[in-house]
Amino acid sequence: MTDVTAILKDMGFDLPQTAPPLYNYVPYVISGSLVFIAGQIPFINGQKLYIGKLGETMDIPTGQKAAQNCALNILANLRDAVAGDWARVVRCVKVGGFVNSTPDFDQQSVVINAASDLLVSALGERGKHARFAVSAPSLPLGASVEIDAVFEIKN
Amino acid sequence: MTDVTAILKDMGFDLPQTAPPLYNYVPYVISGSLVFIAGQIPFINGQKLYIGKLGETMDIPTGQKAAQNCALNILANLRDAVAGDWARVVRCVKVGGFVNSTPDFDQQSVVINAASDLLVSALGERGKHARFAVSAPSLPLGASVEIDAVFEIKN
Amino acid sequence: MTDVTAILKDMGFDLPQTAPPLYNYVPYVISGSLVFIAGQIPFINGQKLYIGKLGETMDIPTGQKAAQNCALNILANLRDAVAGDWARVVRCVKVGGFVNSTPDFDQQSVVINAASDLLVSALGERGKHARFAVSAPSLPLGASVEIDAVFEIKN
Repeated sequence: MTDVTAILKDMGFDLPQTAPPLYNYVPYVISGSLVFIAGQIPFINGQKLYIGKLGETMDIPTGQKAAQNCALNILANLRDAVAGDWARVVRCVKVGGFVNSTPDFDQQSVVINAASDLLVSALGERGKHARFAVSAPSLPLGASVEIDAVFEIKN
Repeated sequence: MTDVTAILKDMGFDLPQTAPPLYNYVPYVISGSLVFIAGQIPFINGQKLYIGKLGETMDIPTGQKAAQNCALNILANLRDAVAGDWARVVRCVKVGGFVNSTPDFDQQSVVINAASDLLVSALGERGKHARFAVSAPSLPLGASVEIDAVFEIKN
Repeated sequence: MTDVTAILKDMGFDLPQTAPPLYNYVPYVISGSLVFIAGQIPFINGQKLYIGKLGETMDIPTGQKAAQNCALNILANLRDAVAGDWARVVRCVKVGGFVNSTPDFDQQSVVINAASDLLVSALGERGKHARFAVSAPSLPLGASVEIDAVFEIKN
């Protein structure tokens, strides 16, 4: 597998630094060959980005940028989980996507797909995953999107 | 294990054809002995069925039919995951149920239970699973229910 | 690992009895080294406790007590899964937290953190987990919080 950081750089994305969680949990847990990555919101390097609600204060293209930020935070934590050795990433297994939206918004899949696209661009076929995309009436700190993920890695 | 397709037929259900996802993800991922099945909505064979919101435009019996359709789509993808060999299915591990509902609806368990019942009818004791049942303020394309699942299989 | 029941007792908590689910699912499933625990609401020993909606009829400290009850129910089911032998618990892997809230509530993490804190108090470093915390517009039977979990155990 090519260096994912370089692929992202070519796409115009910098892999963010990971932040320690503000609360009593950890950003990822490795159990056997699975890595469970905590729900990521679109805040990057401490900046509270992409606060808003789809269908009300945020349009779909902006929500897609939020979803991309979530995916970048997921990949940054995955990098930590494999100690920077991307060759240990076997595949993305599962993505769970929550969109902060009004009760009449129905384009959850379109928003979360921006995260799925980024994962597939970064990891190739190994980036393809099962997923759900649903709405939430609100998300922590007003975030517009929250996404968690499960990956398979080689130990 | 008896042929699940035949059991469902006796119950009046046809296992649907699986549709490729419209977006950049896959309907299921096998990792070790676990199959992660993507969130399924009640659309069957391309028909947009059971659009609505519980507590507002859809009653509980109709929501239960929607949940059954989600379960049928889950079983159809499980069939693909085991290449039609139902004997490879060890058990259903986990079901995650999202009900598109109003903020005062509180019968999520009753709705999702129709999916749980169908899984147990189809797979017997091996169909019993851990699960959550929650509401979402809206779901993709207006679907009334979305359900994902994890199964254990023999490779 | 010290006896978790005793640690909780020192904190003023009694590990509740587990109740059989009202519907066609099971409280936990063991698959390989993973235990998947069904979504737990704050009802304890048959009492319907902590019904309400954050941001409307329930304040944050009460929501945190609800989250603690969910964690107690999770630990009670974990105890059953390891037949009372806490030394078989390797770690908490993942927690999924749903908060019944209004669309403008944004302190989901603060509410769910009370459950995370309790898990870490009870299990020490092995209690630390990946997690998501999101809102739901409503939860089964009006519950204010629903939390599911995945643990790794030794067989």
